[in-house]
Amino acid sequence: MSQTNIPYKIYLDENEIPSTWYNVRADMKNKPAPLLNPGTLKPLKADELKPVFCDELIAQELDDTTRDIPIPQEIQDFYKMYRPSPLTHATFLEKALDTPAHIFYKFEGNNTSGSHKLNSAIAQAYYAKKQGLKGVTTETGAGQWGTALSMACAFFGLDCKVFMVKVSYEQKPFRREVMRTYGASVTPSPSETTEIGKKILAAHPGTTGSLGCAISEAVEVATHSEGYRYVLGSVLNQVLLHQSVIGLETQAACRKYGIKPDIIIGCAGGGSNLGGLISPFMGEKLRGEADYHFIAVEPASCPSFTRGRFAYDFCDTGMVCPMAKMYTLGHDFIPSANHAGGLRYHGMSPILSQLYHDGLMEARSVEQTSVFKAAEQFARTEGILPAPESSHAIRVAIDEALKCRETGEEKTIVFGLTGTGYFDMTAYQSYNDGTMTDTIPTDEDLAKGFASLPDVKL
Amino acid sequence: MSQTNIPYKIYLDENEIPSTWYNVRADMKNKPAPLLNPGTLKPLKADELKPVFCDELIAQELDDTTRDIPIPQEIQDFYKMYRPSPLTHATFLEKALDTPAHIFYKFEGNNTSGSHKLNSAIAQAYYAKKQGLKGVTTETGAGQWGTALSMACAFFGLDCKVFMVKVSYEQKPFRREVMRTYGASVTPSPSETTEIGKKILAAHPGTTGSLGCAISEAVEVATHSEGYRYVLGSVLNQVLLHQSVIGLETQAACRKYGIKPDIIIGCAGGGSNLGGLISPFMGEKLRGEADYHFIAVEPASCPSFTRGRFAYDFCDTGMVCPMAKMYTLGHDFIPSANHAGGLRYHGMSPILSQLYHDGLMEARSVEQTSVFKAAEQFARTEGILPAPESSHAIRVAIDEALKCRETGEEKTIVFGLTGTGYFDMTAYQSYNDGTMTDTIPTDEDLAKGFASLPDVKL
Repeated sequence: MSQTNIPYKIYLDENEIPSTWYNVRADMKNKPAPLLNPGTLKPLKADELKPVFCDELIAQELDDTTRDIPIPQEIQDFYKMYRPSPLTHATFLEKALDTPAHIFYKFEGNNTSGSHKLNSAIAQAYYAKKQGLKGVTTETGAGQWGTALSMACAFFGLDCKVFMVKVSYEQKPFRREVMRTYGASVTPSPSETTEIGKKILAAHPGTTGSLGCAISEAVEVATHSEGYRYVLGSVLNQVLLHQSVIGLETQAACRKYGIKPDIIIGCAGGGSNLGGLISPFMGEKLRGEADYHFIAVEPASCPSFTRGRFAYDFCDTGMVCPMAKMYTLGHDFIPSANHAGGLRYHGMSPILSQLYHDGLMEARSVEQTSVFKAAEQFARTEGILPAPESSHAIRVAIDEALKCRETGEEKTIVFGLTGTGYFDMTAYQSYNDGTMTDTIPTDEDLAKGFASLPDVKL
Repeated sequence: MSQTNIPYKIYLDENEIPSTWYNVRADMKNKPAPLLNPGTLKPLKADELKPVFCDELIAQELDDTTRDIPIPQEIQDFYKMYRPSPLTHATFLEKALDTPAHIFYKFEGNNTSGSHKLNSAIAQAYYAKKQGLKGVTTETGAGQWGTALSMACAFFGLDCKVFMVKVSYEQKPFRREVMRTYGASVTPSPSETTEIGKKILAAHPGTTGSLGCAISEAVEVATHSEGYRYVLGSVLNQVLLHQSVIGLETQAACRKYGIKPDIIIGCAGGGSNLGGLISPFMGEKLRGEADYHFIAVEPASCPSFTRGRFAYDFCDTGMVCPMAKMYTLGHDFIPSANHAGGLRYHGMSPILSQLYHDGLMEARSVEQTSVFKAAEQFARTEGILPAPESSHAIRVAIDEALKCRETGEEKTIVFGLTGTGYFDMTAYQSYNDGTMTDTIPTDEDLAKGFASLPDVKL
């Protein structure tokens, strides 16, 4: 790699923000399997999805042939608020590691949502507005996606109803207040405002909620309210499409400065960040133009890629959503409560699942204390306090750089830094106090999750 | 103003980061009055300050003639991590206000300390390291300065001892954990670790502490520990010098794109941000090269400029620090507890005090509910959730832009956006809940503060 004239932070010009998203499905020989209607077990058609999702987003969800999809001008204008995001040359980290490797990270945390989630939130809000809808509903756990969506809705003057898992609503009030500042209504889930919420409360008085339950409430409100639709921040094909803006900018910055990545690393929960970052590079690989070593990093406590099954499963715990073919631990699988680092989803993006199944990328799982150790080292050398999710990618980037120190190889490593950890200080505290523990599910734990897999033979 | 080709966010190139700080005192006809030794009432000499402050910082504190002071390369390298900071053209806010005014803001919040404080923290840590010291001590209230200093110390491998006002230590644990992640030791003040702390605890059992007490403890530890010095994040001349990097970048961006500010606005607590932002522009004004309308914005609950006296006073409540001539409410003045928005200091930078006294700038006070209203509008239109402190400047920027709507004037308004409000969500919550109140001290309240002014006639 020629390192001449590479600044510490590469900021593309405003006019270099991509004007199209990249749809990796167009270049995949083996397309991701279609979503299934859980009743008929037949591929879902656009019309069946219309009561739940916005029309234009359904079209994007189902389109596996159009390679480049134009980004509407209004979304490009919004992107200017916080994009292009910097591709940073981690020279301080390289020095601390004493490695011949060249490390770069694409930082998506310089916006108030604190993560890359805004890239898709603004797109989904735009299409809802364009369709003339009044508002959207969604669920949120710790609140990153809900925050991003509330910012996007405030921008377009859309109503935003967020169902927030009750335990987070009560114990993590800060993101809740960010959402309220952006005008969103935030309801602790389960709530008395929906039929499903009432049922759950009756069956489980005092429950602190779950993401699965919050999804069910959000979908119920969307389908029962005039002018509302449901939106989702990960897993779906449309989300990976919008998030391709991350990879496209990374690709453009690399080309501009002659950076040739050998390894590209991203953390993987539902796959929105990893998919967005690697898509355009994967396209090069699929078309035979270049080769890259892709590494998905997941928590050892929720190891969908590394220990899951490639099978049809429900996207949500409550089984109200369609079924997707993906790497999954079973929709009943819930990671241990002591797992602090996000990335708690039982399944994985169908696109990434197919690519992994086809041997086009590697996956690794890491334990959380080693993740926070990497986070601490990164914070102290590069100045940014990373989100626990992002720190999974940092862990493996450091591991790979240390391997280069052993072998003397000058590999170029690019990883995605999805966001900041300012709302995750409780987890950092347990690390600082030395009380953080790791949990790896036993084979018996996994067997329970797999038992919830639906019996779908196609 | 010619608006052609001005991007939404102006990022200077890395090589346009200033290589010298600007010392506005060199251009002031009336220099700020010297610090006094409270015992002798004579101007403090460098030697008297050496047990407390680093040698090089003392030289900077006392130098009122050198206009440009070189920024050491190590500090310039660190600045690259988060500088140049963007000067953003607030087109979304302009549109929402329907104003012919052109609004720009210099955003200093895109770093983990969340504010501009890092600009001086890294300089002070550098000089401590260069002097061969082991570490530094300081106090912090809500924690912005302590966070910045802990980041800077981690970078240079210096020990960092922070005394954090006990009520903040307990009720605002998140910034405390950020500091710990950067390796700082954080002690709730008053503590049993110092003589002054023990005395205060004996006299006031159960006290939740104050900034004045934390300063006293930090100074005691610095002066009683081999290889330690005390550092401070505002008020001092050296701090304004380091913060001039804000104004220099703003000036360079304005020149590059032909932006000619009419009004320059900053919030004012101790003056570090305001002084840093306006210094280079004030220099132009002092040298007769250009004219600008400067506005300092302070909270109505702590109105040092607008209702204070220009007099010698102690810099701290505990009277262990030198006396400075400044606009002050008296060192015994404590703003009402319901004032959420920071900027709680009883005094003001001596440099800014002199400039204000000489009629070179305006000052305005604003009430906190109107400040949070401006913050909300800004967050929803420009996408950044601002710190309450910064929002004081937003309030007046919006007021001035609305005046332009009345008059049709196309004024160019530049304001300083010092930081983000992610650790201030409790204050936002009280605004969101409609329970926020305003407090304006009565003349009797102020009289009590003024009664604590020392009797210094020079």
